[in-house]
Amino acid sequence: MTLPAADPALVEKIAVANRILYRIGVVDGFGHVSARHDKSPSHFLLARNMAPALVKREDILSYDLDGNALDAEGKRVYLERFIHGEIYRARADVQAVVHSHSPNVIPFGVTAQTLQPVFHMSGFLGEGSALFDIRDVAGDTNMLVSSGALGAALAACLGPRSIVLMRGHGSTAVGGSVEQAVYRAYYAEINARLQMQAKLLGEVKYLSAQEAAKAAATNDTQLARVWELWRQEIGSID
Amino acid sequence: MTLPAADPALVEKIAVANRILYRIGVVDGFGHVSARHDKSPSHFLLARNMAPALVKREDILSYDLDGNALDAEGKRVYLERFIHGEIYRARADVQAVVHSHSPNVIPFGVTAQTLQPVFHMSGFLGEGSALFDIRDVAGDTNMLVSSGALGAALAACLGPRSIVLMRGHGSTAVGGSVEQAVYRAYYAEINARLQMQAKLLGEVKYLSAQEAAKAAATNDTQLARVWELWRQEIGSID
Amino acid sequence: MTLPAADPALVEKIAVANRILYRIGVVDGFGHVSARHDKSPSHFLLARNMAPALVKREDILSYDLDGNALDAEGKRVYLERFIHGEIYRARADVQAVVHSHSPNVIPFGVTAQTLQPVFHMSGFLGEGSALFDIRDVAGDTNMLVSSGALGAALAACLGPRSIVLMRGHGSTAVGGSVEQAVYRAYYAEINARLQMQAKLLGEVKYLSAQEAAKAAATNDTQLARVWELWRQEIGSID
Amino acid sequence: MTLPAADPALVEKIAVANRILYRIGVVDGFGHVSARHDKSPSHFLLARNMAPALVKREDILSYDLDGNALDAEGKRVYLERFIHGEIYRARADVQAVVHSHSPNVIPFGVTAQTLQPVFHMSGFLGEGSALFDIRDVAGDTNMLVSSGALGAALAACLGPRSIVLMRGHGSTAVGGSVEQAVYRAYYAEINARLQMQAKLLGEVKYLSAQEAAKAAATNDTQLARVWELWRQEIGSID
Repeated sequence: MTLPAADPALVEKIAVANRILYRIGVVDGFGHVSARHDKSPSHFLLARNMAPALVKREDILSYDLDGNALDAEGKRVYLERFIHGEIYRARADVQAVVHSHSPNVIPFGVTAQTLQPVFHMSGFLGEGSALFDIRDVAGDTNMLVSSGALGAALAACLGPRSIVLMRGHGSTAVGGSVEQAVYRAYYAEINARLQMQAKLLGEVKYLSAQEAAKAAATNDTQLARVWELWRQEIGSID
Repeated sequence: MTLPAADPALVEKIAVANRILYRIGVVDGFGHVSARHDKSPSHFLLARNMAPALVKREDILSYDLDGNALDAEGKRVYLERFIHGEIYRARADVQAVVHSHSPNVIPFGVTAQTLQPVFHMSGFLGEGSALFDIRDVAGDTNMLVSSGALGAALAACLGPRSIVLMRGHGSTAVGGSVEQAVYRAYYAEINARLQMQAKLLGEVKYLSAQEAAKAAATNDTQLARVWELWRQEIGSID
Repeated sequence: MTLPAADPALVEKIAVANRILYRIGVVDGFGHVSARHDKSPSHFLLARNMAPALVKREDILSYDLDGNALDAEGKRVYLERFIHGEIYRARADVQAVVHSHSPNVIPFGVTAQTLQPVFHMSGFLGEGSALFDIRDVAGDTNMLVSSGALGAALAACLGPRSIVLMRGHGSTAVGGSVEQAVYRAYYAEINARLQMQAKLLGEVKYLSAQEAAKAAATNDTQLARVWELWRQEIGSID
Repeated sequence: MTLPAADPALVEKIAVANRILYRIGVVDGFGHVSARHDKSPSHFLLARNMAPALVKREDILSYDLDGNALDAEGKRVYLERFIHGEIYRARADVQAVVHSHSPNVIPFGVTAQTLQPVFHMSGFLGEGSALFDIRDVAGDTNMLVSSGALGAALAACLGPRSIVLMRGHGSTAVGGSVEQAVYRAYYAEINARLQMQAKLLGEVKYLSAQEAAKAAATNDTQLARVWELWRQEIGSID
């Protein structure tokens, strides 16, 4: 059975998300964003191996949850596509995944600190960030989630949370839509900087669990506002 | 009785202020700036619910002090329009209000530190910043000033000061003109960064109350200089 | 006796310097740069009261050392022109003066810390920065050097050094040419950030007095390199 | 015997590397990048004395390992060309050298701290950074590596590592290709900022030696991805 073609609007949205993530400083030459296939929950859409800022519609490939590209036709694929496949397998609610090395988040992963919501924009951090140390599951590696087994371990560590820190590597944020995953990756980065600064200033009063949950619910109704801005700023993706 | 149309120059100035606040890093996809209606002190002008960087003249709506939009015609309005209405009600001297999540200010609000004037540009901080913790007045919320009662509590907390920090959220700066409110929001952000750095370096000698008052008075005579620069930098708003 | 017209190349260079200082982050909407008049050592050239980024050739006015503009024709002048006049009076070797609120330098002034050369680019800091506290000479003021007497006090405090920090205000750098003064203002700002970071990391090994003097002498032979870059980057000033 | 002309593609790549290093914040008006001559291992290619951001193909000169320019024709050469020559002499595996004052690295050199790999992107730091203090070998100098003897001392200090910090000056990174040297200079800068932040947050878990080596090996297979991005971003170099 052949996989039906994905909705062209979704393919475009993923290409757009790549450009946005570069513009807002979440990814540099590395990092990637995927979405679950709209016609098949056991497939996802992800660019071929390339810098996010350069991704076009035609660079988006289809993968099964084991990380096999169906239409690569010889193009190189990301070494860490297993991050995406295994999270989609473990979390039926997840429709989009952003993997990045966003800079302010890294220091938290290497010092085993938890991201906590400093302000309402990061209410999605109410349950805190998870922390994945690849050394715990696989000893000395090249730090990459380069197999299904490692992807599954990462997904297990993420659990029901919105973001998992990856020690000595970066982080992975998830969402119920491309917009939400991008929003979370961005505000996790912003929150990390604020949290670092606040800790240097004194005792930090984080959002309570209730405040975080309520703020997150409200912010989810405002995603279109910031997406419209970001979309306009990147201009044409052709 | 119908509300007379606001001065087109004021409407344009508010649209311009939205663009400026984005360019100078006070707002991102969120935040808003209003001005009291020039024909009716019991009304104010504020954009519809949208990213500040995209606001045009025609996006500016009129509201009464209870936060009811008179000409929304189905457009979405900001959830926190009550910040503006209640401050205009409480402070006859205030002609413009900027609400933002400007990043360097946030750590002060969550650690209960007061912004104090590090340099003459922020003489308006001479009385210090107020601190509003929504939890004190309403328990666990979504952190937003989403009702007249919350807006009134915020305005009471602001008192006669120029800026009120909002714990876990952001801040709100006020002014006697759009230019002054934007100036204060900007230099509060700059001052916050300087104050943080100075505290890490050693014992800080802030401006005395007298110095702050005198510096603020002088700086108010220089607002046109920086406004002209900012206005030119954003270019056309059409 | 009439003051002869200044060399048009010098007038252009001052306009260019204004633009450069804005682009490299030394000034924002405030701050100014002057040069001693090439035909009369008892006069100097400085823009009218305006944002540095917008200065054109025709905005450059001539002043005597008391701060009187000779050709203002009703244009507003800077409140702090006395900084320039009194330094030119006190320091025959100074040909250009930059006054700014460059951000990383401010925390040093308010904590009474001395700028010291972290790297060879700031060898001109070998004698350290001077520190001027206007409160010591004039009590509670608006913080501005708004008279000849205050300017003279600032110049006396500067002494033979390259830069004087002004508590709660900013700093003033001097040079033997416009290029050198701009270079010093820029690398004082860079050095301040490096010095702050280094102090947080550990015990700092600054350049020795000898190293600083030798490095400064060498760097002065390389000023044209960075000036050429900066000049190209700002493009046309018309 | 005349030196054969270098591969035009290599000459272009060096010009491109100069522009890239400026765009990504590794160099400012100062700093330089060279490559070993592809036709003669005892020669290297380096721009004439100028700001890296302005370098064109025709500005690339040929030098012997003693730092003598073969085709300068009166053009000024960099005072520190000996850094390049002596490293090429000492390290047969090195094909490209980047010397910079990249800002976040400087505080490490002046506090005698070692750069260590915070994340996989900087696996090349697995052996740590070397630290060269010119004062130890030559007493009070102008801090510049301005002779063959100083260059040889620097190369000896670098040893088999990827980068050497230069106290009170900057750093020098090496690579097996222009792409790799630029990558290392960039991620050393990024790593320095992360390492500084992480140290302020708590006890840092760096990559183990094995992790660093494996990560470095993998990243070397991905250099083309980020180079393609950087190349596109600088646009035409003519």
